[in-house]
Amino acid sequence: MNYNFSDRISGVPRSFIREILKVAADPSFISFAGGLPNKDFFPLKEIEEAAAKVLKNDGKTALQYSITEGYLPLRKYIANRYKIKKGISVSPEHILITSGSQQGLDLMGKIFINEGDNVLLEEPGYLGAIQAFSIFKAKFIAVPLVEEGMDIELMRNALLKARFKLFYAVPNFQNPSGISYSEENRHEVARLISNAGTVMIEDDPYGELRFLGTEKTSFKKMLPNQVIMLGTFSKIVAPAFRIGWIVAPDEVFEKLVIAKQAADLHTNYIGQRIIYQYLIDNDIDAHISKITEAYGKQRETMVKAIGTYFPDDINITLPEGGMFLWMTLPQGVSSITLFNKCIEKKVAFVPGSPFYTNKGDVNTLRLNFSCSDEKTIEEGIKRIAEALKSK
Amino acid sequence: MNYNFSDRISGVPRSFIREILKVAADPSFISFAGGLPNKDFFPLKEIEEAAAKVLKNDGKTALQYSITEGYLPLRKYIANRYKIKKGISVSPEHILITSGSQQGLDLMGKIFINEGDNVLLEEPGYLGAIQAFSIFKAKFIAVPLVEEGMDIELMRNALLKARFKLFYAVPNFQNPSGISYSEENRHEVARLISNAGTVMIEDDPYGELRFLGTEKTSFKKMLPNQVIMLGTFSKIVAPAFRIGWIVAPDEVFEKLVIAKQAADLHTNYIGQRIIYQYLIDNDIDAHISKITEAYGKQRETMVKAIGTYFPDDINITLPEGGMFLWMTLPQGVSSITLFNKCIEKKVAFVPGSPFYTNKGDVNTLRLNFSCSDEKTIEEGIKRIAEALKSK
Repeated sequence: MNYNFSDRISGVPRSFIREILKVAADPSFISFAGGLPNKDFFPLKEIEEAAAKVLKNDGKTALQYSITEGYLPLRKYIANRYKIKKGISVSPEHILITSGSQQGLDLMGKIFINEGDNVLLEEPGYLGAIQAFSIFKAKFIAVPLVEEGMDIELMRNALLKARFKLFYAVPNFQNPSGISYSEENRHEVARLISNAGTVMIEDDPYGELRFLGTEKTSFKKMLPNQVIMLGTFSKIVAPAFRIGWIVAPDEVFEKLVIAKQAADLHTNYIGQRIIYQYLIDNDIDAHISKITEAYGKQRETMVKAIGTYFPDDINITLPEGGMFLWMTLPQGVSSITLFNKCIEKKVAFVPGSPFYTNKGDVNTLRLNFSCSDEKTIEEGIKRIAEALKSK
Repeated sequence: MNYNFSDRISGVPRSFIREILKVAADPSFISFAGGLPNKDFFPLKEIEEAAAKVLKNDGKTALQYSITEGYLPLRKYIANRYKIKKGISVSPEHILITSGSQQGLDLMGKIFINEGDNVLLEEPGYLGAIQAFSIFKAKFIAVPLVEEGMDIELMRNALLKARFKLFYAVPNFQNPSGISYSEENRHEVARLISNAGTVMIEDDPYGELRFLGTEKTSFKKMLPNQVIMLGTFSKIVAPAFRIGWIVAPDEVFEKLVIAKQAADLHTNYIGQRIIYQYLIDNDIDAHISKITEAYGKQRETMVKAIGTYFPDDINITLPEGGMFLWMTLPQGVSSITLFNKCIEKKVAFVPGSPFYTNKGDVNTLRLNFSCSDEKTIEEGIKRIAEALKSK
């Protein structure tokens, strides 16, 4: 049988990270490659109680088909939390529950991107967004991140040279770099995209995982009609439910609902019900504090271990939250070569190249600190440093 | 803010059925409009036990991210069931767990359809497929269903006149018509698409819900490399999990995995684990027998009531399984006009027009018999017959 596939699928590469995760499945491996939350913090008992309660009290409804938009009390909860935590006023009617926030990217690609449309990305950028928009044959232009956020000069130039359908950004504890936009940077970026009339996707999976510094202003607050915001319970409750959301103004929301219905009718409803029950029966802020305290210590240990074992000519970001930091090796040192040496030493990370849209071998890499305890972090960093020395 | 949406989303209509379901939410309404399984048969207690067991025994893993392909033991279970129940030999490596079988349609559209590609449909056809493929700007050609399946002459002509990327069909207890393809019709259809080299999507959500007649040969068995099969647990366990699957040969499977990863990373994993636990701890065949026995009685009641209350010049299908039957009113009688009269009488169905790709007002309609008890069915049919008489 000779399959005649669509043009759009031929351009999407298989994820390099997927392949790495397979290698790193060996339990004797130390892996800083994953992007997983730490499973030791999953509220097992509380979720078991929430599930039993939902099934006992309203099981027949909770197991039936439901509406595309999502469970209204959950959408109200999210709206209320935005108000309390970030001072953002959004209506529950503008919150669509999605099958993970990854689906938000697929839906946004579907309703906005025609073949060849320009999409502005951060460089390095989130791989899942690159994949999702590749399916719709977007043309990517990436603007480098600097310590305080987007490189404003380069972003201004990019916006002058072309029209962009979308600007995709992760302003808090970005994946892969760990960088957060400063308050000033946010205002400058907002001014640029406001002038350009470009729709911005503000993806905020890690925003609640802050262990240092202070909360910054959300783009959604600055440009409510121009910014589409993505959120998820994967990092603060558990990823296996695949429950995220997308916040969009009326006109966009309506298109998203049509696309969502064609994509999977609605997000798994029993999961929405269990998560909601968990949220109202427990102190989620206390739970998040436990997670961020641990991640903060693990990040501290990683930074210290890098200081101890690595030579001075490498550079790292110093994230104030989230799950990742970003290392830049000396000019000309290949992170893929280092990766291959590290596999022999049974330690893994993600080499930088998949996070760029047009670069092959680079001298950067991503390190995850959320999934390993402090002792393992120290040992893993030591192994990478040894691999780097063994030329 | 002036949003510049993609071309693809502008052509997809909001679902008429969604709108009907809103009307029919009033509890004094009798609704034959939905496509829901009967919630009285959801195995509440068993699912509660399965959930508790999974969370107790392997909770940390069950709440974590997982692989795109789906939970391997569940894929093995499905493969084994195909072997036992239908004599179809498929490898678990060719089964991808999807977010409901609706997602299978989205993924197939993504990897196969370029703008303007021809897709062959049944007429009337499943609305969810029309929506999913509309997103990718397919061109639809629909071939009428007759009592024994596809109209072979018209299908042959259609295949002679154009090349088709896909042929989408629901050969068992079709939605909306309730028609099942006869054994002979299947062989003729298989010969036609084999000669044409068209990839067929065999969607089988209702196949296990047979209350009359005998199991027919699956297209997957006849043309294993050419047929992509969709399945779901929505109708035999519960829809709220949104757990379906797609069976595809190697080359197609690999593309589907890439598209799935970009769409939502993976199907909700906790749901996969709970469904699997439920399946291995319970007698699913006994459970399915309970459902089909009830649906069979309800279908019987509906057919009898139609015989009692309706005039002789209407026509209905006599489904051997599934959840729907299809009524053809006398020539020139509008099912939308009838629908509007029925709303006044507090009874609902779905007028035929959304199930056609190019017809406005028609004289056909869909009746669901899975969700109402026998008394309600008799009363509802009586009301529709009265509305029909009240010219």
